[in-house]
Amino acid sequence: MEQERNRLILVTNDDGIQAKGLKTLIDIVRPLGEIFVIAPEESQSGMSHAITVKTPIRVKKIKQDGNVLINSCNGTPVDCIKLALNKFLNRHPDLILSGINHGSNASASILYSGTMAAAIEGCVNGIPSIGFSLLDYSPEAEFNGVVKYAEQIILRTLEYGMPQGTCLNVNFPANHSGEIRGVRICRQTKGMWIEEFDQRIDPQNREYYWLTGDFINLEPDAVDTDEWALQNNYISVVPVHVDLTSYGAMDHLKKWQFDGEGKK
Amino acid sequence: MEQERNRLILVTNDDGIQAKGLKTLIDIVRPLGEIFVIAPEESQSGMSHAITVKTPIRVKKIKQDGNVLINSCNGTPVDCIKLALNKFLNRHPDLILSGINHGSNASASILYSGTMAAAIEGCVNGIPSIGFSLLDYSPEAEFNGVVKYAEQIILRTLEYGMPQGTCLNVNFPANHSGEIRGVRICRQTKGMWIEEFDQRIDPQNREYYWLTGDFINLEPDAVDTDEWALQNNYISVVPVHVDLTSYGAMDHLKKWQFDGEGKK
Repeated sequence: MEQERNRLILVTNDDGIQAKGLKTLIDIVRPLGEIFVIAPEESQSGMSHAITVKTPIRVKKIKQDGNVLINSCNGTPVDCIKLALNKFLNRHPDLILSGINHGSNASASILYSGTMAAAIEGCVNGIPSIGFSLLDYSPEAEFNGVVKYAEQIILRTLEYGMPQGTCLNVNFPANHSGEIRGVRICRQTKGMWIEEFDQRIDPQNREYYWLTGDFINLEPDAVDTDEWALQNNYISVVPVHVDLTSYGAMDHLKKWQFDGEGKK
Repeated sequence: MEQERNRLILVTNDDGIQAKGLKTLIDIVRPLGEIFVIAPEESQSGMSHAITVKTPIRVKKIKQDGNVLINSCNGTPVDCIKLALNKFLNRHPDLILSGINHGSNASASILYSGTMAAAIEGCVNGIPSIGFSLLDYSPEAEFNGVVKYAEQIILRTLEYGMPQGTCLNVNFPANHSGEIRGVRICRQTKGMWIEEFDQRIDPQNREYYWLTGDFINLEPDAVDTDEWALQNNYISVVPVHVDLTSYGAMDHLKKWQFDGEGKK
C-alpha cells in the first residue's frame, strides 16, 4: 500500500495499551498515514460507553515511532476518543479504529463493549469508525489469519466512505476454527447473557459476587445474523447506528393517548 | 390506585440509593405491587452499560418497608439489573423502572446514561422497561410536577404492554421551566457533546484533566425530536430499541464486494 502522509487515523481499544490486538491493528494501518494511538493503560473490558467524571484523567506519551504516536490514558475507551478529538488532534481524523478486541462483540455483547463504544463515539462525531474483534479471549490470540481482511475493510471504508450516522461492528472467527470463508454483511443477533454470579465468602466472612455468564442465541438458525456468520466461519460486518429510536414502535405508543400528545 | 400484591416491579437508578429521584419513583410505584429496589451505593452517572468484571460485587439489604424491599450494590446500574434478575428475584418482574435521574438523558446523552442502560438491560431480557429523567441536575430537584405523568406512563405500559425489543426513554422538563404542556412521542435528536477538558496541574506538578462539555443540538428546529419537546415544555417519550443494526446501511455495504460476501 502506498504511504499517504496527510491521512490521519485515530486508533484505540479496550484491552489496554499492551494488548496484542492493538499492536496488530497499528501494524495494519502504519502504511496508511499519520497514526495517533491513545489507549487505556489497563484493560477496560465491559466498560461500554462509560466516561470518567469522578476522577482526574491522565495521559502519558509512550513513544513516537516514525509516523505512529502512541499515548496511554487512565480512562475508558470513550474518554480516549473524546481526549483525542477535543484536546490532542488539531483536525478531525479520517478514520477511527478500535481493537482488535480479544473476544467477541457480536450480538448483545455490543452493548457492554468498550471497543464498540469507542467506534460509536467516533460515529457520533461524524467520523467513519470501525470496531474490530476476534473470537478469542486469550492474550496470546493469533491474529495472522485476519490481517488481510481487516486491511480490506479499512481500505473499502476509506474508498467508499461510511453511511452517515453509521459505524461498523466487525467480528472475526477465531483462528483455530478453520479457514475463513469470507465476509458477510449481517444484522445483530437477538440474544442475551444469562448470568450466574459466582457467590463467595471473603476472609472477613462477607458475601461477594463475581459476574460470570453464558450467551444465549435466541435465533440460532437465522442466516442473516452475525452469530450465524461467525459460527460458519465467516467474518461478520454489522452496520451500527447511533440513533436508538425504535421508529416501528412509535405508532404503538401513539395509541396510548397521553395528555397533550400530538399538540404542536 | 388499587394495590395489586402479585405484581412485581424492579426499580434502580444511577444516582445512587440516596437520590431524591429514586425515592420519588419508589413512592409512585408503592401502591402497584411488590417492589424490589436495588440501586448503586454511590452515584454511577456516566457509567453507561458498564458491568463490573474486575472487582467483587457486594450487595447490602437496606430495609424492608412494607411491600418495598430496598438493597444497595457497589456495582453499576446494569450490575443491579443482572443481580436482581439472576440472583435475587425468583420470577421475572412485570416492569423495570430506572430513575428518576437528576439530569437529562435526551438525545446523545442516552449513550452515556446508566439510567437508560438499566432500562435497556431489562429490555434485552424481554421485560417492559422505562428510564425516567428530569432536566435538573440538582440533588434537591423538585419532582412534584412530574409525578402524575410518570404514574400515567407506568400505568399505560402495564395496560398496553411494550412492543418487543423496545424500552422507553422518558425525559421531563425541569420544574422551573413552567407548566408542562403534555407528553410527546419523539425520536432521538441528532446531537453530540463538545468536550472541553479542564486541564490542571496537581501538587506533584503532574498534568490531569476533568471532563466537561456542552451539548450541541444538530437539528434544533426538528419538532419531532426529544430536545424540541423538552425545550417547549413537553415530556419526551422516545421508544428505544436494543437492535443497533442500521438496516438502511446494509445495501450500501453490500456494494463493497468483499471476498465471499453473500455466499451461503
